[in-house]
Amino acid sequence: MPVVSIHEPVQEELAKVQAALDAVKRNEFSLLEGMLGNVLSASGKRLRPTIALLAGRFGEYRPHLLVPLAASIELLHTATLVHDDVIDASDTRRGRPTTNARHHNAAAVMLGDYMFAHAANLICQTESIEVVKLFSRTLMAMASGELTQDMSAYEYGQDTMAYFGRIEGKTASLFTTSAEGGAMVATATPEHIAALRAYGDNVGMAFQVVDDILDFSGDEAELGKPVGSDLMQGTLTLPALLLMERHPDDNPVKKLFADNHSEEHLAEALFMIQNSTILDESRAVARDFRDRAVAALEPLPDTPDRAALIDIADYVLSRQQ
Amino acid sequence: MPVVSIHEPVQEELAKVQAALDAVKRNEFSLLEGMLGNVLSASGKRLRPTIALLAGRFGEYRPHLLVPLAASIELLHTATLVHDDVIDASDTRRGRPTTNARHHNAAAVMLGDYMFAHAANLICQTESIEVVKLFSRTLMAMASGELTQDMSAYEYGQDTMAYFGRIEGKTASLFTTSAEGGAMVATATPEHIAALRAYGDNVGMAFQVVDDILDFSGDEAELGKPVGSDLMQGTLTLPALLLMERHPDDNPVKKLFADNHSEEHLAEALFMIQNSTILDESRAVARDFRDRAVAALEPLPDTPDRAALIDIADYVLSRQQ
Repeated sequence: MPVVSIHEPVQEELAKVQAALDAVKRNEFSLLEGMLGNVLSASGKRLRPTIALLAGRFGEYRPHLLVPLAASIELLHTATLVHDDVIDASDTRRGRPTTNARHHNAAAVMLGDYMFAHAANLICQTESIEVVKLFSRTLMAMASGELTQDMSAYEYGQDTMAYFGRIEGKTASLFTTSAEGGAMVATATPEHIAALRAYGDNVGMAFQVVDDILDFSGDEAELGKPVGSDLMQGTLTLPALLLMERHPDDNPVKKLFADNHSEEHLAEALFMIQNSTILDESRAVARDFRDRAVAALEPLPDTPDRAALIDIADYVLSRQQ
Repeated sequence: MPVVSIHEPVQEELAKVQAALDAVKRNEFSLLEGMLGNVLSASGKRLRPTIALLAGRFGEYRPHLLVPLAASIELLHTATLVHDDVIDASDTRRGRPTTNARHHNAAAVMLGDYMFAHAANLICQTESIEVVKLFSRTLMAMASGELTQDMSAYEYGQDTMAYFGRIEGKTASLFTTSAEGGAMVATATPEHIAALRAYGDNVGMAFQVVDDILDFSGDEAELGKPVGSDLMQGTLTLPALLLMERHPDDNPVKKLFADNHSEEHLAEALFMIQNSTILDESRAVARDFRDRAVAALEPLPDTPDRAALIDIADYVLSRQQ
């Protein structure tokens, strides 16, 4: 399915979102402008803003409030990526050098803060204290999820429930806010707001599970990072957790965490995950989230906007990078 | 003048602000709780929240909205300090190890983000989109000021106007928001809001000028950092700018920036600044800001709250660390 169909119903508004992001880039300092240009390039899929714009069609359509909401969400998302790259000490993202690699950690910290500030400013343009509250709770959930992941790194004995809780905060919460925020700005009915919230949550969960599968199954060149890098950083994701469940007493993850720089144990874990049904099982979990997302849309009228939301759920499931 | 008099009229509310900050500290992760405990210890002067609470007395006094505002401001202030220490690669703050020194940069970045998120959440409790907007603009001004400082580091040829603009964003903006935000929550008259905004701006400017003087005149043990560290980091503050104005063609700052690790040129710059009238001139500038702050309060009724605001301006001018 072509990606274009996802964006089709809201193409005009997405152009305005891009204009809002371009306005953030313009800065008296050419170095800062360059840094913002790199991280806010138009190459992304813009999934979150697209969801926000589509959700805003189920009620009173108010593009002048939806565009700042969508731009704010994309900016917040990008700001967290900039800080994540400092936190993970990543040199590349999608094959391009990160801000911390191009410049230094200090620049990346400041750049992220500057983008958070702009995101906060844009969200206020919705003129709704309820939407701003939603935004602030999301920020808390994301920061908590990220912290939880870091603090539990190399900690053996986590289970899939803890994993789902963590990715709900770290990733799904912003998808939820995109859908729920869009519906709130449109003053949709409580039933429709709840439907879109559930949609966002499940699409976000599917997104992260697929991301975590790609870390084991993906192509290093397409991913722009080495296969198995989550595990090497001590982060337990679904495939690794399923491996541990199958071999509770003796498995390479346990050995890897006991000696966290062993390429040999990493290679063994990758081999066992790739040559078993673990990735298929993980894909089934992602598909289940996709199905729940689509089912959640049931109460909404059958419009091209709803169809586009279903397309997004399918795209999230099928993406290869 | 004893510091206690500053806090006297709002002691009860300050205790509630501390309780709100203590609530932020409580966390399921003991490591995070420990980190938050270190940065949110009750040892600070709480100047900004005190100003917010006092400003909130000029109108309809609503402590249930003012306390979250004041707590949010202190949390935001502390979050920026945590990130500043990463940006400046500082090992100590007020003689105690920084978060990045105790743990690592990643932890400090996440801790700061987590605190920003909580600050955003608290500010929403004011239930005023106008106050949240003020907050977001302040965040932008602070981030811009910090970025401007970093990007113009070791850049010779700045003037005092650029310096005042930078410290207005970096420091004064949060003082302004404390005073203006408190007055807005109290639905004070436009005239009183404007008076308190001008007060906050000028107190904040005085605060930063004094800070920059202390970097040259202070005691290393009391400051908890080496004398002259701004200059060593390439940051031009008022005393250095005055030195450059006096000796435009040949001065040690020029040499220091050309060869930015020379202890010899730093020592020479320190000697020339300390053994001239430059620090007195700088103190006169700080006093001028203090006087403007006090004059700005003229339209307000002569109450113990106004007297406490004047005490704060005097305290800012007289502080030695």
